[in-house]
Amino acid sequence: MKTLQVDLGDRRYPIFIDAGLLNRSDLLVPCIQGSRVAVITNTTVGPLYLERVLQVLAPWNPIKVILPDGEQFKTLEVLNQVFTALLTERCDRKTTLVALGGGVVGDMAGFAAATYQRGVPFIQIPTTLLAQVDSSVGGKTGVNHPLGKNMIGAFHQPQCVIIDTDTLASLPDNELSAGLAEVIKYGLIGDLEFFSWLEQNMDALLARDPQALAYAIERSCADKARVVAADEREAGLRALLNLGHTFGHAIETGVGYGNWLHGEGVAAGMCMAADLSRRLGWLKPEDVTRIQTLVRRARLPTHAPKSLSSTQLRELMSVDKKVEAGKLRLVLPKGLGQSVITADVQPALLLETLEQCRESA
Amino acid sequence: MKTLQVDLGDRRYPIFIDAGLLNRSDLLVPCIQGSRVAVITNTTVGPLYLERVLQVLAPWNPIKVILPDGEQFKTLEVLNQVFTALLTERCDRKTTLVALGGGVVGDMAGFAAATYQRGVPFIQIPTTLLAQVDSSVGGKTGVNHPLGKNMIGAFHQPQCVIIDTDTLASLPDNELSAGLAEVIKYGLIGDLEFFSWLEQNMDALLARDPQALAYAIERSCADKARVVAADEREAGLRALLNLGHTFGHAIETGVGYGNWLHGEGVAAGMCMAADLSRRLGWLKPEDVTRIQTLVRRARLPTHAPKSLSSTQLRELMSVDKKVEAGKLRLVLPKGLGQSVITADVQPALLLETLEQCRESA
Repeated sequence: MKTLQVDLGDRRYPIFIDAGLLNRSDLLVPCIQGSRVAVITNTTVGPLYLERVLQVLAPWNPIKVILPDGEQFKTLEVLNQVFTALLTERCDRKTTLVALGGGVVGDMAGFAAATYQRGVPFIQIPTTLLAQVDSSVGGKTGVNHPLGKNMIGAFHQPQCVIIDTDTLASLPDNELSAGLAEVIKYGLIGDLEFFSWLEQNMDALLARDPQALAYAIERSCADKARVVAADEREAGLRALLNLGHTFGHAIETGVGYGNWLHGEGVAAGMCMAADLSRRLGWLKPEDVTRIQTLVRRARLPTHAPKSLSSTQLRELMSVDKKVEAGKLRLVLPKGLGQSVITADVQPALLLETLEQCRESA
Repeated sequence: MKTLQVDLGDRRYPIFIDAGLLNRSDLLVPCIQGSRVAVITNTTVGPLYLERVLQVLAPWNPIKVILPDGEQFKTLEVLNQVFTALLTERCDRKTTLVALGGGVVGDMAGFAAATYQRGVPFIQIPTTLLAQVDSSVGGKTGVNHPLGKNMIGAFHQPQCVIIDTDTLASLPDNELSAGLAEVIKYGLIGDLEFFSWLEQNMDALLARDPQALAYAIERSCADKARVVAADEREAGLRALLNLGHTFGHAIETGVGYGNWLHGEGVAAGMCMAADLSRRLGWLKPEDVTRIQTLVRRARLPTHAPKSLSSTQLRELMSVDKKVEAGKLRLVLPKGLGQSVITADVQPALLLETLEQCRESA
C-alpha cells in the first residue's frame, strides 16, 4: 500500500492507495471520532460497493444516504436531502460522513460535511479515476448553480482519502477516459516527465493495467498534494490545477450539466488552452499536436461542441471563479509541461480559439 | 465611538459602536478588498437604511439584494436567491457582502459569504438589538432546516461589525425586547454585576435611553468577544452562549419559524433553564424569581406556549447541535451569574420543567 500525506499542519491527512482497501477497517476506523457514521453514495455505486463499506462500519450502525447519479443532481436541492436524512436520524455534530463514489458524491458529501451543524468530519472513498486523482484530494467541496459550476461551496479537508484501485474495474470506459483528462493535466501543468510517461503508457492505462493505473494515481495525487499543501485556499499557485477548467466548465454549463462528463470538458478545455498558447507564441505547433494526440488517444474530445457558439462560450467563461474585477484569468501552457496564470490575453485571440476549437469548425 | 476587538489571530476584527455610524465611510471602506460590493438587506430594513449605506458605497456601484423579512425565510431556497443575484451580476470571489439588518439577514448574508465561490469577505451592519449584541459577533452563520434551527451553516468571521445605535429608534418594541433576552443572557452566564445593572436600568433600556442602550450593547459585545476569542468553534466554553437556546429553539421550531421571535424563545428558555436548575438544587427559588422578574420586565415570555406539549418539546430538543452520542447537553445556571454545561440531567426532572413551564400550566 502506498501512503501519501497532504501536508496541511493540523489539517494534515493521509491518502492510501492500493487494491482491496474497501475492506480495510484499520484505515477507516481511526478516522472516525464520534458515535455516528453516515455513508453517502449514489444509485450506481451503491449496489456495487456499499455493502462492503457498511460491513466495515457495522459497529457504528451506519446511516445510508443514496443520491441520484449525475452532475445534474449536484444541486442545493439534492444536498438538502442529505441534511434531511441526517436530521431525521438525529445525527449529531460529531457524525462522520463517508463519501463513497465519484466526484459528484465527494463534492456533495464534502459540502454537506462542511455545513451540517456548521461542520462535521468526513472521509473520501473515491471510486472513479477522476475522483481518485483529483476531486477527493484537497478539500474543495460544493454544488453547482444553474448559472455556474461549483459556484457554491467550501474548503473542507477530509480526515483521509482511501483509494481502492479495484473499484476501477467497474468503471465505464467513458468515465475512465474522463479521469485520464485530469491525469494528463498534471503532466501539462508541471510534470513533463509524467506527460512523457503517459505517452508511453496510454495503451496500458486504457487496458486497465493495474500497475499502470496505480502509478498514474499515485503520481497524480503526489502532484496535487504538493500544490494543495503550498496553497490550500487558492491564493495563487493552486489555480494552476484549473488548466482547461475555465473552458471546460463553460462547455459543461452550456450543454447542460450531465451531458458532458467533467473530464470531457477538461480534456477539450486543455486542447483549447493549448491552442490559445500557440496563438500567443507560448507553445510550438508540434507541442499542441502532442497534447491533442494524447487527449485523443485517451478517447477524449479535443474540441468544444458545435452546438455552442464562440459568443456563448465567452459569455459562460465570464462567471469563472478566477475572474477578478471583471478580468478573465486563464491557466495556459507556456512550454510543454509548464503552465502559468495570466490575465493578459487579447480578447481577439481568445475568440479565435473559441471559434476554431469547435467540432468540425 | 467605542471600539472592541474580537481577538482571533489573523481573523481578528473590530466592533465599532456609536450613534451615526451608518454614514461613516472611514469605517466601512478599509474593510473592502475587491472591486465589487453587494448589500444584502430585507424588505423592512431596506426602505429605512439602504440608501445611506449605498451612498457610502457609491464608488463600488454596489449591488442590492433584498430578502423577505422573517425567520421563516431563513432557508436554503431564499439563500439561493442571493447566489442567483450575485452570479447574475457576475460578482467575483473578491466581492464583499454587506449584511444590513437583523439576525436573519446577518446569518444568511454571512452563510452566503462563507459559501459563495467557496468564501468571500463580509461586513456586519446589524440594525436590531439582538443582532447588535449577539448574532453579528462571532462568525456563526447559517440557515434553518424544517427539522431544526440553524442546522446548516458555517463559521465565517466578518471583516468588521458596525453598530449604529441610531438604528434602534426604528425597532418595534417586541424586537427591542427580543434583543434584551440575549443581553440578560450575558448576565446569567458569567456577569452578575451586569445582571444587577440590568435590574437597575431595565426601565431606561425600555425607554430607549441612548446611553443605557449603548452601555448594554458594549458590555454584551465585550462579554461575547471574550468567549468567542477563547473558543471560536465551540469546542467547549462557547456553548455557554446557548443558555436558554435548546429550550428556545424547540419552541421556535415547534410553533413554526416566524411565530415566536428568536429572543422570545431564548427568554422563555432561560426561565425554563432556571426552573430546571432549581429542581437540581443549583439555584435558589428567590434567584429564579429574580430571573423571571427581569425577563418579565423586559416584556418577554417566561413560559413555553401551551400549544406545545412537554413530549413535543422534549422531542424537538433532541435535534439540538449540542447533543452528543444521543445525550442532550444543557446549559444551566449554577448560582446566579454563572452557568455550566451538563449532560447529566435526570430525564424526569427535565420533563417536570417542560410540563410546568408552559403557559398557564
